[in-house]
Amino acid sequence: MIGLGRMGAGMRERLRAAGHEVIGYDPRPEVTDVDSLTALAAALAPPRTVWVMVPAGEPTRATVRALADLLTPDDLVIEGGNSRYTDDVPNAELLAGKGIGYLDVGVSGGVWGRDNGYGLMAGGALEHIHRAMPIFDALRPAGPREQGFAHAGPVGAGHFAKMVHNGIEYGLMQAYAEGYELLTATELITDVPAVMRAWSRGTVVRSWLLDLLVRALHEDPGLAALTDHVDDSGEGRWTLEEAITRAVPLPVISAALFARFTSRQESSPAMRAVAALRHQFGGHAVQHAAGPTGAADASACRTS
Amino acid sequence: MIGLGRMGAGMRERLRAAGHEVIGYDPRPEVTDVDSLTALAAALAPPRTVWVMVPAGEPTRATVRALADLLTPDDLVIEGGNSRYTDDVPNAELLAGKGIGYLDVGVSGGVWGRDNGYGLMAGGALEHIHRAMPIFDALRPAGPREQGFAHAGPVGAGHFAKMVHNGIEYGLMQAYAEGYELLTATELITDVPAVMRAWSRGTVVRSWLLDLLVRALHEDPGLAALTDHVDDSGEGRWTLEEAITRAVPLPVISAALFARFTSRQESSPAMRAVAALRHQFGGHAVQHAAGPTGAADASACRTS
Amino acid sequence: MIGLGRMGAGMRERLRAAGHEVIGYDPRPEVTDVDSLTALAAALAPPRTVWVMVPAGEPTRATVRALADLLTPDDLVIEGGNSRYTDDVPNAELLAGKGIGYLDVGVSGGVWGRDNGYGLMAGGALEHIHRAMPIFDALRPAGPREQGFAHAGPVGAGHFAKMVHNGIEYGLMQAYAEGYELLTATELITDVPAVMRAWSRGTVVRSWLLDLLVRALHEDPGLAALTDHVDDSGEGRWTLEEAITRAVPLPVISAALFARFTSRQESSPAMRAVAALRHQFGGHAVQHAAGPTGAADASACRTS
Amino acid sequence: MIGLGRMGAGMRERLRAAGHEVIGYDPRPEVTDVDSLTALAAALAPPRTVWVMVPAGEPTRATVRALADLLTPDDLVIEGGNSRYTDDVPNAELLAGKGIGYLDVGVSGGVWGRDNGYGLMAGGALEHIHRAMPIFDALRPAGPREQGFAHAGPVGAGHFAKMVHNGIEYGLMQAYAEGYELLTATELITDVPAVMRAWSRGTVVRSWLLDLLVRALHEDPGLAALTDHVDDSGEGRWTLEEAITRAVPLPVISAALFARFTSRQESSPAMRAVAALRHQFGGHAVQHAAGPTGAADASACRTS
Repeated sequence: MIGLGRMGAGMRERLRAAGHEVIGYDPRPEVTDVDSLTALAAALAPPRTVWVMVPAGEPTRATVRALADLLTPDDLVIEGGNSRYTDDVPNAELLAGKGIGYLDVGVSGGVWGRDNGYGLMAGGALEHIHRAMPIFDALRPAGPREQGFAHAGPVGAGHFAKMVHNGIEYGLMQAYAEGYELLTATELITDVPAVMRAWSRGTVVRSWLLDLLVRALHEDPGLAALTDHVDDSGEGRWTLEEAITRAVPLPVISAALFARFTSRQESSPAMRAVAALRHQFGGHAVQHAAGPTGAADASACRTS
Repeated sequence: MIGLGRMGAGMRERLRAAGHEVIGYDPRPEVTDVDSLTALAAALAPPRTVWVMVPAGEPTRATVRALADLLTPDDLVIEGGNSRYTDDVPNAELLAGKGIGYLDVGVSGGVWGRDNGYGLMAGGALEHIHRAMPIFDALRPAGPREQGFAHAGPVGAGHFAKMVHNGIEYGLMQAYAEGYELLTATELITDVPAVMRAWSRGTVVRSWLLDLLVRALHEDPGLAALTDHVDDSGEGRWTLEEAITRAVPLPVISAALFARFTSRQESSPAMRAVAALRHQFGGHAVQHAAGPTGAADASACRTS
Repeated sequence: MIGLGRMGAGMRERLRAAGHEVIGYDPRPEVTDVDSLTALAAALAPPRTVWVMVPAGEPTRATVRALADLLTPDDLVIEGGNSRYTDDVPNAELLAGKGIGYLDVGVSGGVWGRDNGYGLMAGGALEHIHRAMPIFDALRPAGPREQGFAHAGPVGAGHFAKMVHNGIEYGLMQAYAEGYELLTATELITDVPAVMRAWSRGTVVRSWLLDLLVRALHEDPGLAALTDHVDDSGEGRWTLEEAITRAVPLPVISAALFARFTSRQESSPAMRAVAALRHQFGGHAVQHAAGPTGAADASACRTS
Repeated sequence: MIGLGRMGAGMRERLRAAGHEVIGYDPRPEVTDVDSLTALAAALAPPRTVWVMVPAGEPTRATVRALADLLTPDDLVIEGGNSRYTDDVPNAELLAGKGIGYLDVGVSGGVWGRDNGYGLMAGGALEHIHRAMPIFDALRPAGPREQGFAHAGPVGAGHFAKMVHNGIEYGLMQAYAEGYELLTATELITDVPAVMRAWSRGTVVRSWLLDLLVRALHEDPGLAALTDHVDDSGEGRWTLEEAITRAVPLPVISAALFARFTSRQESSPAMRAVAALRHQFGGHAVQHAAGPTGAADASACRTS
């Protein structure tokens, strides 16, 4: 297991709890089991299976390149980070040139996965899938395998599926959030957290995300301690880019992404432009005398 | 129980299974227990509790008016249909004039509620809530009461909460649907139903709606038997109208509603107008000679 | 002319410049020609034509009620404010009961209308349209009548047309604004105001609104003096409500309206809810040790 | 002038009308002035200015590569097609290696530009701009130069500006289209084309696009001859992709693009998925007995 952040460390723990022998590497001495990738490779008897769980982009690509030099034919690399699926075929081809196998796996579940199990979507060759199945079985939630694991397709399919999963996640989160806001916008609802908690069982909108929101509202009923500036990760953007390429309309997922973009703006140039246009309707003289409120209240009719 | 459609009949059954005595009325002889509302009222010993579960709008209002004449002081009417919350205060006032109590209850769960229990959101006075609690306890899912029932606020709050619940539901359904479409738009994903089934446990997007979609994909992997024309009920529209009134932005929920509107159009006047505009760019002569494809492929550059 | 705000005063001026005799009433002594509605009625010889140009809603309805008492059969009331079209039939019926005619007219053009002329959309009976045509001809821009005036339909059609006009206006403004923001978001464009000014002639996007934005950018190239909090008036909301009623999808106009709602929020409850959900993914321990950046940068992989 | 499609041919004509000597090349013998690019180069005395007006993408790139071989130091290539701005720096560098100058110019105006002039946005070095100014002055509309031409920035800025221009265009078109649809959705408006024609002068929404829509409605009042399937070109998609990269929210422009995507679908997988979910609410038994309509109409209450 390379990368012992919140995800990698939790996965190491879940694998060990299932009886697997796991050696973890991380540059942080306080969490790593070995001093280097070289030491990691040396500590395992071939054929080795190495799970890469490091930040997407160059860190992951660099790790794969390093493994191409360190590993030997018949080893298997499983890339489980939040990488863009377009990285996978190049990774796989680099490793295939050395006889090393490759799987890409989308992993979902957050820090809760350590105890609940992780949802897994894998891309790659069937023989590699079969070989790694004991690992997948240990990581996925209890219950039928097909409810927590899928072989989604060839190399890249795992990360593509995870990308779409996260795009959906954006839409779901925004839907609950909009409903929450509307509930808070009326005095009629006297206990918003109680209403959302009552949706936990039996209703059509029950879900794990709802459970998390109920939990958050229990800890902070007005969500007052939180900023409304919301980051986005790569997957939401990639989902939208893929949809553009394939001419798939994503009105909800794009709206959810844009709401995050907007949330982070200190000032919106676009809305200043709208304000400027409204201003211009009024011509040069923008200081309007406030009219008295008479019986017929006849003043100040602004018609565009 | 007045109204023995899919919801009312299921609720009667669940209440009886919990040991309650229930008399149901429905105009359809094959499902009703009594011949008339009068007979229903006569069959119950005061103080009576009457649950109204008929279509929203005039049918419900007419039923409440009929009950105002049939019932007596200290009776209680529970309006559990999909009514607009603005109907509730008039209903309550009409009945209060006769000394009859009133609760409005949003009920979620569909036909599955009979076995799983129904999520309940109630509006009205605390004394009426307390009185009806044995009924709510029988209808709601097993587990802690607060996870399947909430006293949302005064009269109207139950239906307001249900309205928002359904608005959220629109957004959630559309989010899954957009993700589904993107998964089907690439050859990389070889088994879309398997991917979505693998999200059932452990993932961030797991939910009851996902379970239903997995079920639908199991029955019909390409959803080929279904039309893409999707109806909408009142609650989605009301949610949006309430948001407009309160200046609450609902980009996701509105997009989900509009997707349904669009789905039902045989031809879109708006898109014909866009087509007309594109057409006009090209001037009167719209028959373009197809240019040969030469080395420099220099023909037919259309720039707007 | 009742109501001598920016619109009413400009219209009085334009009408007088065209040779019409106009008596204006406004509660503000410094702009009014007469002291009261009674004096206004007395100053005109029957049959009178009275143009009402006061704020929409109760002020306009109150003025119409007052006129119903003051005017006499064969007089004509023209309601030119930004009223909701649903007010028009009640207004017309009230006046018809006294033998007084009624037209509703949507007026567009802002303060620029005084010099450029106003675009007019009228609803009502043909006989009233004919009678008021000299007024319409004076108010509308020079050029063919049909390019600045339309008889849109029966009573209410004028305000309905104006409502849709303003809904479109919201979409147009937001489209320019989004483009403006994207231009400012790249260093590649060294002179954003110059680019937008170059669109003034010849391009597909040329328009009067663009001219106004070019003017605003000329006065304040970064629009730095403006707040990004943008108000909305009734028509945008009414447009969306009408669309909901008629199941007409308005993705662009609704997005433009919601952008204004969002722009006015000091803090977004919805986005705090999204932040809360993201927070919950991380579990209870939200203080994460910042990992060192090593060769393989293997720390801190956050996968949801 | 390389490429004599609708745009290139119109531009050749406008340039000639202004007194410029223009030699056009196109693979179609019926429109070309010379037989080959080689002949084109030979027919001009250095230093030459060559305007490339061929389809975006590989055709344009291939033409630039061909010109790199044919032209000589101090020649100037102006790339005026609808290319993505990211193509410009590679083009410019290829030509700079041969001492050849490069400008990228976004051209707007459609077939109408031949008579009205074209709006121009140019990217590149000031010296090249100056040199080509007589050409720009001939192509742009009459009036002040800055209202039809801008030096938008370095190489790439012209096409970036044009991309944003087209993104705005999508939003504008959709705004008018949505308003048109809402006007057609009520019987209150008896003459929709007349209403939109009346917006031509004086109103806030007046524009050239509105003029085109009025023209289209004059030719075909119900737009009945048109399909509602609307294509999109690269620029709308690129605009959205650039916005994603820069975290700029584009709710209106994206909604306009998605409306086109949707318009072209014979069947929407997403909406079939929504239909499937609604279906599942109803459980296995989806054939519902149609209830009689009784006094209380108490049947068939469907609550989700």
